[in-house]
Amino acid sequence: SKAKVGKMELDSKPHASEKVQQEIIELADEVQNEIDRLNEKAAEEILKIEQKYNNLRKPFFEKRSELMTKIPKFWVTTFVCHPQVSSLLGKRDIDALHYLTRVEVTEFEDNKSAYRIDFYFDKNPYFKNEVLSKEFHLDENGDESTKSTEIKWKFGRDLTKRSIPKLSKASKKRKRPEPESFFTWFTDHPDAGPDELGELIKEDIWPNPLHYFLAPELDDDEGDGDDEDKNKGVEGDDERKGGKVVEGEDDKKNPDG
Amino acid sequence: SKAKVGKMELDSKPHASEKVQQEIIELADEVQNEIDRLNEKAAEEILKIEQKYNNLRKPFFEKRSELMTKIPKFWVTTFVCHPQVSSLLGKRDIDALHYLTRVEVTEFEDNKSAYRIDFYFDKNPYFKNEVLSKEFHLDENGDESTKSTEIKWKFGRDLTKRSIPKLSKASKKRKRPEPESFFTWFTDHPDAGPDELGELIKEDIWPNPLHYFLAPELDDDEGDGDDEDKNKGVEGDDERKGGKVVEGEDDKKNPDG
Repeated sequence: SKAKVGKMELDSKPHASEKVQQEIIELADEVQNEIDRLNEKAAEEILKIEQKYNNLRKPFFEKRSELMTKIPKFWVTTFVCHPQVSSLLGKRDIDALHYLTRVEVTEFEDNKSAYRIDFYFDKNPYFKNEVLSKEFHLDENGDESTKSTEIKWKFGRDLTKRSIPKLSKASKKRKRPEPESFFTWFTDHPDAGPDELGELIKEDIWPNPLHYFLAPELDDDEGDGDDEDKNKGVEGDDERKGGKVVEGEDDKKNPDG
Repeated sequence: SKAKVGKMELDSKPHASEKVQQEIIELADEVQNEIDRLNEKAAEEILKIEQKYNNLRKPFFEKRSELMTKIPKFWVTTFVCHPQVSSLLGKRDIDALHYLTRVEVTEFEDNKSAYRIDFYFDKNPYFKNEVLSKEFHLDENGDESTKSTEIKWKFGRDLTKRSIPKLSKASKKRKRPEPESFFTWFTDHPDAGPDELGELIKEDIWPNPLHYFLAPELDDDEGDGDDEDKNKGVEGDDERKGGKVVEGEDDKKNPDG
């Protein structure tokens, strides 16, 4: 802009009375300061409300997580029932996600755009970690960066490697190419853009995971085909068995065979 | 996701006790309802605070607008001093913007993403309108639409038409091609994306127009070259004349010649 303005004539001798004009600018500046003060106070009050409700919500989130660990295959069913997340899951990913017992999203209070997702797993045939985490940060330039747990794969079990030692019968039958493994998501890239899966889990699933777990569009083999409101809940609804359980076709029962 | 899940085996006979599982899901649903209620209450409280501060700010915004109308060439200087907006202005646009006396941004309270910008003009040689407005709306699908004032150009004065009847000396000297006229912005396009200029005015200029009006980087001809905080304000700062006034090189004084 400097270069452009340099080409124009700048008149530094204001018309009329320079003193009067200067006084008006100072008045406008004072009014602007009042507006700035009100903006700050509004932001403070809003932050307080957010913190108050974060605290009020916390025990309910904890209770919810606890209850969900008691529902068999809760998280794998929820992920498979989410249209976009589902499309990111390969068949072997789904098998591994049967061991996912708990998902937690934590937003960092000091920085609105930073958050972490923790995935807690039962002992499983794929990796040794009990928790896989991915942390998201925004720097001052608006660039995203991530920090993920390194997955300690068990021998021959690395799902992010395409070269599968032995194809199962089921895999051979599948025509559709497998998507890149869900677990490649735990690989940090230096200049990653906005994280699609992170946003889906944080914005879409975490506010109401039951909404996907109970999604009626999955009641295929029950054949009731109801399309009532998905948010209705479960009270007094006999047709909702809750837990349209997804059974892996893979070698889960005999994982090391 | 239906198609995909259809390929998997869905086990509708939950393990352990189906009744117990159903009870757990109902409990989780109740907890979810508590979370939803808290979210709603938080949103209501935040909206109330926003409304409260909108009302508190209103008289100051009005006072500020009033004062700015008394500062010669306030808005044209502010626009020219804004790096991105400046790059959208042709020389003849800048001349026309000398007649801009007042800019108002109005956010519609019932719909956060809808807003209107009003530009008030003095009697001028270019168009007959006293106010040019542009309104921005977001529909449910997230698509933007706009509604703008039709500019009633005076004869031969349509700045959006490239064929200029008579080039001024100054124009002939300029090597850089003129950008498309600023005033083409008042033409509505059916599927416009996010409006860059609208966002710049609403998010960047409107919160503090004085910040750009007083921008020290323009003090070229005063030669003081200070790079102190731009937000500092004007109190007791003798070097800030306020109103680094932009003089059009065009035929403003004799507009119909």
